[in-house]
Order: sequence, then C-alpha cells, then structure tokens
Amino acid sequence: MNTEPPPFTIDAFHRGAFHLVQPAGKGHRAGLDAMLLAAAVPNGFHGDLADLGAGAGAAGFAVAARCLRAQVLLVEKVATMADCALQSCGLSENAGLAARIKVAQADVELSGPERVRAGLPDRSFDFIIMNPPFNSARDRATPDLLRRDAHVLTDGLFDRWLRTASAIARSKAEVAIIARPASLAEIIASLEGRFGSPRCLPVHPRPEADAIRIVLRARKGARGALSIVPPLILHEQDGRAFTERADAIINGRETLFPD
Amino acid sequence: MNTEPPPFTIDAFHRGAFHLVQPAGKGHRAGLDAMLLAAAVPNGFHGDLADLGAGAGAAGFAVAARCLRAQVLLVEKVATMADCALQSCGLSENAGLAARIKVAQADVELSGPERVRAGLPDRSFDFIIMNPPFNSARDRATPDLLRRDAHVLTDGLFDRWLRTASAIARSKAEVAIIARPASLAEIIASLEGRFGSPRCLPVHPRPEADAIRIVLRARKGARGALSIVPPLILHEQDGRAFTERADAIINGRETLFPD
Repeated sequence: MNTEPPPFTIDAFHRGAFHLVQPAGKGHRAGLDAMLLAAAVPNGFHGDLADLGAGAGAAGFAVAARCLRAQVLLVEKVATMADCALQSCGLSENAGLAARIKVAQADVELSGPERVRAGLPDRSFDFIIMNPPFNSARDRATPDLLRRDAHVLTDGLFDRWLRTASAIARSKAEVAIIARPASLAEIIASLEGRFGSPRCLPVHPRPEADAIRIVLRARKGARGALSIVPPLILHEQDGRAFTERADAIINGRETLFPD
Repeated sequence: MNTEPPPFTIDAFHRGAFHLVQPAGKGHRAGLDAMLLAAAVPNGFHGDLADLGAGAGAAGFAVAARCLRAQVLLVEKVATMADCALQSCGLSENAGLAARIKVAQADVELSGPERVRAGLPDRSFDFIIMNPPFNSARDRATPDLLRRDAHVLTDGLFDRWLRTASAIARSKAEVAIIARPASLAEIIASLEGRFGSPRCLPVHPRPEADAIRIVLRARKGARGALSIVPPLILHEQDGRAFTERADAIINGRETLFPD
C-alpha cells in the first residue's frame, strides 16, 4: 500500500474564483502573503503585470481573477513551482483566466540581454508585484536568530529585485512589495532613484500586536517621501476568525490601498 | 490703551498637573507633539532624562509630572524658549516638580568639549527624548513643497541630533523621537550603530487617514531590526474629540508603548 502523501494539491482561492496546483505540505501563510500582495493592485488596473518570485502563481492569479483587463506574467526561478503555475493555467477551473496568464521560468536577478531573453524586456510592464523569497527563509528561522540576523539575511536582495523591477517598468508603472517590518529601511533605500512616493501599510495579526508584514507600493518617476497608511488587522483580538476587512481582502473583494 | 497681546501665556497641561510659560500665538500642534513624545517614556522610568530641543519644556515637564523619580534636563538653543522654561520652573504651580528639572541653553549640535561645557557630558543620561525643530519648519511649508522637498529639508538633522544623543547616553539608555513618516528612513539610518531594536508607532489623525507623525523608540547597544507597533488614532472618524486612548496619553494617564 502506498502511504506517500500526494505530491501536489489543487486549492481554491477567492471562494473558488481560481484554483492553484501547489506542492503538498505548504503552510497557510504563503497563501496569505500572496493574497495580501495581490490586494495592493487597484481594482481598475489594466495593462501588463509581472509577478516576480511568483511561486505557484497565487498573487498573479488573484490579480487576474479580480482585474479582468490585466495581462499577467508569472516569473519563478524554481522549476517545480513554475511547473505548478503552468499546470494551474491548464486547469478547467481557470479557463476564464488562463488566456491572460503566462509563465516565465527565470531568475529575477538576471540582468541585461539574459533578462530580456528570459522574457523580461525593459520598460514592458505597468505594475510589478514581488514577494522576495527571503520571507520564506526567515519563516524557518527562530525568533532569536531573526532578530540577530535581521540585517544579514536580506543581503541586498531587495536592491537586486528592485533593480529588475525598475528596468522592466514602464514610465509611471507601480511596484508593490510584501516583506517584514525589519526590511523597511532597506526597501526604502532600494526604492531611491527608482520608485518614489512609497506608501507603507502595516499588517498586524491582532489589534494589540506588532506588525508581522508590511506592504509597500510606489511609483516609477514619483518623488514624494514615505507615507504610512492605516494598517490592516487580520484577526479580532481574542478570536481566530479573520476581521471583516481581512476576509474581504483575502478573497478579492477589497483592496489594501485607497486609490 | 495698550492692545498688544500678552507676549507670554501660562497654560495648564495634564489637567493641571503642571503649567508652562509659553510665547503667545503658538498653535495647538506643538503641544500635542510634546505630549506624544513624553508618552514614549515608560511609567516606571527613573534616572536622568535629557529633552533635546525642549522649546518651552512641555515634553520634559510631562515626563517629570508622570515619572516622580525622573531627573530632567531641558536643552534648548533659543534664548526666549529656554527663558520660558526657566520661568516655568519658578511657577508656584510647579513647586512639586521644579527641583527635578534643570535648563541648559545649548545647541544640541555641539560636540566634544563644547558640548560638555554646555551641560551635556558623555554617558550621563538614561533616556533622551527629542523633537527636532524641522517639524515646525515643515509645518509652515505647503503640502506640495513638503512632498517635493521631503528629503532636502532634513539635511542630516537627525544624524546630528542622534550623534549627540548617542554620546550623552549611558549604556542601554533609550532614545525617543517624534517626527513625520517622511523621515523614517533617515531616522533608521541615523540610529544605525548607535541605538538598536527601534520600535515605530504611527500616529493617525483619524482611523482612515494616513499617519501624520511617527514616534520611534530605540535602545543603545541593542541589535534588533525595526518593528512597527499598533498605531495611535487621535480622533474618531467623524468627530473632533480625541479618542479615549489619545486623551489618556495626552493627559499623562497612559503611555504609547507596551513595556
């Protein structure tokens, strides 16, 4: 008898609006981060969007499901994940979306002609969203290690990813990033000269708890300084259920930023 | 008949717990910033506290009124303001506090022997609070100018003030700063190598409005990265009255950070 768990699962998102093929055994949190990142894109968005470090494609699919005039490119280095994304494009449940979603198996940190050959030409996207993989690396570290190595673990990651984002962004394109609060200063420094007028939205697990994530959004060519918008609270203070707003955001019925 | 307004007023704070001599014609906001800054100091604080850029001394007096074992030095460059602070020390209403409050008319940006002679010896304070004067300069600028010049107006101000704060701080001393969100990246960069484990508290005028202030608190010798604590909301969405928590904080009955 084969007792191996199935290597892949098919999961519903946005209350069934799209489905994703994902490696089995992944935790809940990766999906939450992707839904929050997708919610940084405004409802009216139309144009070309790149999802850098797309994994199985959750964030890019979420944008495509909500923004019906968005063309989405999922960019993922890891072959297993890029293959999941391709399989998701072939699911009958996603038939309404798949024509607007493409997959590029590529390293976000490529530059020059290599990047162009990988499917990321200069000045070709109107919105770039990114969930750099350091998030998941840090998820596996202990809290003590995280505090001690807060500056070390990122090691220029945001600068390299935002260099690519800036290169592939059209004039006035926007970028959205999900990360930990510990990375805020590095992200702001890496935006400098590339994207301006950054808005930072802190995400708190409960009303009285420190933020566990920040979502930043900035615009190419803008010059304004940082602003901090009202936070998102995920759960009520004493409950496990999502707040009404968090539930609406996670399910594609509301967006994070006032536009 | 003399119709000139009186050049100075005497105002009650913390529901009468202390009074301040202030130049007439000052707006409400300066007092609010000082009360928020003072509320960054924990209830149990005892030791030596320096209030850098103290103005008429509102923040330092607020700490002395709430923390009965705090010794406070008000540091202010402008003679008129330092003189107000001295006059406040002589008010009968402040008799219970004045013995724990001293005034140094000095430029926070002094260094070396000059700084020591001005009354700011190295490693002599357990807590430093600061409201750098760029806040008031920016209050007079138009919103457009503020956005355009967000990076220019500060011009190393936080770095110079935090250099002094670090020099006069004892081991494990804490610093608290009130500023605008636009200055967050510059402040974090200026804390680097001096004060660590910064906590940032955004202050929103109403639940749905962007933050107008941040209060940061960090500790000398600590190594942790930035965290973002739950925000303070000043007013209810549709009212002009302060929220219950804001009122308690402004009046010295609650503090900003969980300790």
